[in-house]
Amino acid sequence: MFEVTHRDGAARRGTLTTPHGVVETPVFMPVGTQGTVKAMTPRDLEDVRASIVLGNTYHLYLRPGDDLIARRGGLHRFMGWSRPLLTDSGGYQVFSLAARRTIDDGGVRFRSHLDGAAYELTPEKAVDIQAQLGSDIAMVLDECPALPATDEEMRRSIELTARWAVRCRERMLELRAGGVSGVTISNGGQAQFGIVQGGTSPNLRQLSAEWTVAVGFEGYAIGGLSVGESPEEMYQTVETTAPLLPPTQPRYLMGVGTPVDLVECVARGIDMFDCVMPTRNARNGQLFTSEGILNIKNARFAEDDSPADPACQCYTCRHFSRAYLRHLFVAGEIIGSALNTLHNLYYYLDTMQGIRDAIALGTFEKFRQSLHRSFSRRSLNP
Amino acid sequence: MFEVTHRDGAARRGTLTTPHGVVETPVFMPVGTQGTVKAMTPRDLEDVRASIVLGNTYHLYLRPGDDLIARRGGLHRFMGWSRPLLTDSGGYQVFSLAARRTIDDGGVRFRSHLDGAAYELTPEKAVDIQAQLGSDIAMVLDECPALPATDEEMRRSIELTARWAVRCRERMLELRAGGVSGVTISNGGQAQFGIVQGGTSPNLRQLSAEWTVAVGFEGYAIGGLSVGESPEEMYQTVETTAPLLPPTQPRYLMGVGTPVDLVECVARGIDMFDCVMPTRNARNGQLFTSEGILNIKNARFAEDDSPADPACQCYTCRHFSRAYLRHLFVAGEIIGSALNTLHNLYYYLDTMQGIRDAIALGTFEKFRQSLHRSFSRRSLNP
Repeated sequence: MFEVTHRDGAARRGTLTTPHGVVETPVFMPVGTQGTVKAMTPRDLEDVRASIVLGNTYHLYLRPGDDLIARRGGLHRFMGWSRPLLTDSGGYQVFSLAARRTIDDGGVRFRSHLDGAAYELTPEKAVDIQAQLGSDIAMVLDECPALPATDEEMRRSIELTARWAVRCRERMLELRAGGVSGVTISNGGQAQFGIVQGGTSPNLRQLSAEWTVAVGFEGYAIGGLSVGESPEEMYQTVETTAPLLPPTQPRYLMGVGTPVDLVECVARGIDMFDCVMPTRNARNGQLFTSEGILNIKNARFAEDDSPADPACQCYTCRHFSRAYLRHLFVAGEIIGSALNTLHNLYYYLDTMQGIRDAIALGTFEKFRQSLHRSFSRRSLNP
Repeated sequence: MFEVTHRDGAARRGTLTTPHGVVETPVFMPVGTQGTVKAMTPRDLEDVRASIVLGNTYHLYLRPGDDLIARRGGLHRFMGWSRPLLTDSGGYQVFSLAARRTIDDGGVRFRSHLDGAAYELTPEKAVDIQAQLGSDIAMVLDECPALPATDEEMRRSIELTARWAVRCRERMLELRAGGVSGVTISNGGQAQFGIVQGGTSPNLRQLSAEWTVAVGFEGYAIGGLSVGESPEEMYQTVETTAPLLPPTQPRYLMGVGTPVDLVECVARGIDMFDCVMPTRNARNGQLFTSEGILNIKNARFAEDDSPADPACQCYTCRHFSRAYLRHLFVAGEIIGSALNTLHNLYYYLDTMQGIRDAIALGTFEKFRQSLHRSFSRRSLNP
């Protein structure tokens, strides 16, 4: 399902084939938390050339529920998105959003942040929910330990994650072999990725990588980063962990990150990314541009007739001025969120296209330095 | 600028030529309060075939200000809308939204609902602001009397409105003749419409119509309806007032209404309408369909795979189910507002297209009865 077509240093360009089409890597996946990328229609996503979108299992499990979505024919049909989808396992949101969590070997019990209702997420349940959602790529349930954690706590956590990985894979193979009563398989070609944890410890990352690879998945993710450590610690961890993963399989860095993070982690062998940053920051008026970060609410833009990013070809930049975007933000207009989101996603996805092109041309290092210059410039908002 | 091309009873089809293009009438104008039709981009508006949009002078005067918009080249350029625009005078919002209003012959002083800042709106000022906004059609400042009003109060009110109409026209002619210092004319071809008031009194409506027509405008509006009177009172007032207006000029019924109101008032000779109903109700989950009103939040739609309106060809109905729209509404997703708004505007504008086609074919009465059947059916939401 994955083929590396070009290499430039540790950076690689490739294609990931899924039941809903081919994804060119390195790829950034916009986050569609509740069955939609916030403020974007599917045609907006096609307009910004999104090739794969991430869905959050935790949110969809709670509302409207994976059973309801399975009865609708799966998440693709429900949300009107015909291109590839990846779903996370729900674990990260359980550990960050849900109330009254109790974890043991069996799984995690928690209460919904929406209405306090009690739920349980086991490794098998996380696999079943994603089978019902019918994403093209499903993730295993992992533990995201509370930080700071001692080495001992972190060691116990990666052991639990490894045991859960085995159970997730067994369940997936069971579903593939003949199904499980009560579980609707909405996508017969769903792949499953394992997740390596271990914080910023090279030893724990190595152990977790070995255990996860030993289980055998169609791809591997690096989880537990971008949770408060410095960029240097993150880059170092990616640099030591990525080579421990099978070179013929896709590598996904979860929850990362800034444009600079993307290029730095591609440089260390990462193929896939997701992050709420371009969408969430857009709704807060923060725009990513070829000239750095721009906070559109700033009064200096009130009479600025130039587009958000003069170098950008997105719908927002082709049609609207900074003055208008600032007005929409100040006036609290919904469409301000939509136009900002459209721009930020275009910027992210265009940056990924630039990265892919540069890898193919052998000019990745030049692209990387150029991106660094964009974001190390004196910001537009001192 | 206005040509009646077909008649069917009192209903008429025509073309209204403006500096930004030709508008086919009868027409419904989506309301773009703060320099945007809420939740819609200009390309969404083109997608639903909006031919003219209304801008609210009160809101734009307060924020971002007509001076700022004039420096951007006018409202069309500011909001990225290249088709016709009509602006109201700001009067209606001053009387419904602003705080601490005091009215005298000179004009109205009020405080902004946003920050309490003091403003004054005079007839001349209302003309100047709209000149700076550069709409294709500007409205005169009229008084919208508080209801209920005695006959004497209403008589005083239409007299004030008539005096203001004279001053508005004089100011407009002054602007056209050579301009006014400090006022930027953003649209050299701006038309100006007068407004007939008088509540539901035939006598007062007749007086107000005579006085307004005597001033001489490019078109005439009927104001002060859809403010609490019954539909029958409104239809009766339109029926007696419309024939008092020049048959060769466009007639605009302000702030109206439901789909049934539109067809009933076209039947009485109205050419133009605006109303927040399709956009505001969309954001509250209420959809207008060929089968009547549908409240998308209703639990009965949770597993309904049919489109909002099976007879509709809009983007929303071609791609999404009631189940999905309900999920977006319940989850509070922005894009639910956008998809609902897109559908409602499509429904309204498609209804107007149906009305125009029927007038041309001489089948208006049949169309009118058919629309009545849609909305008198047992609602989808008992």
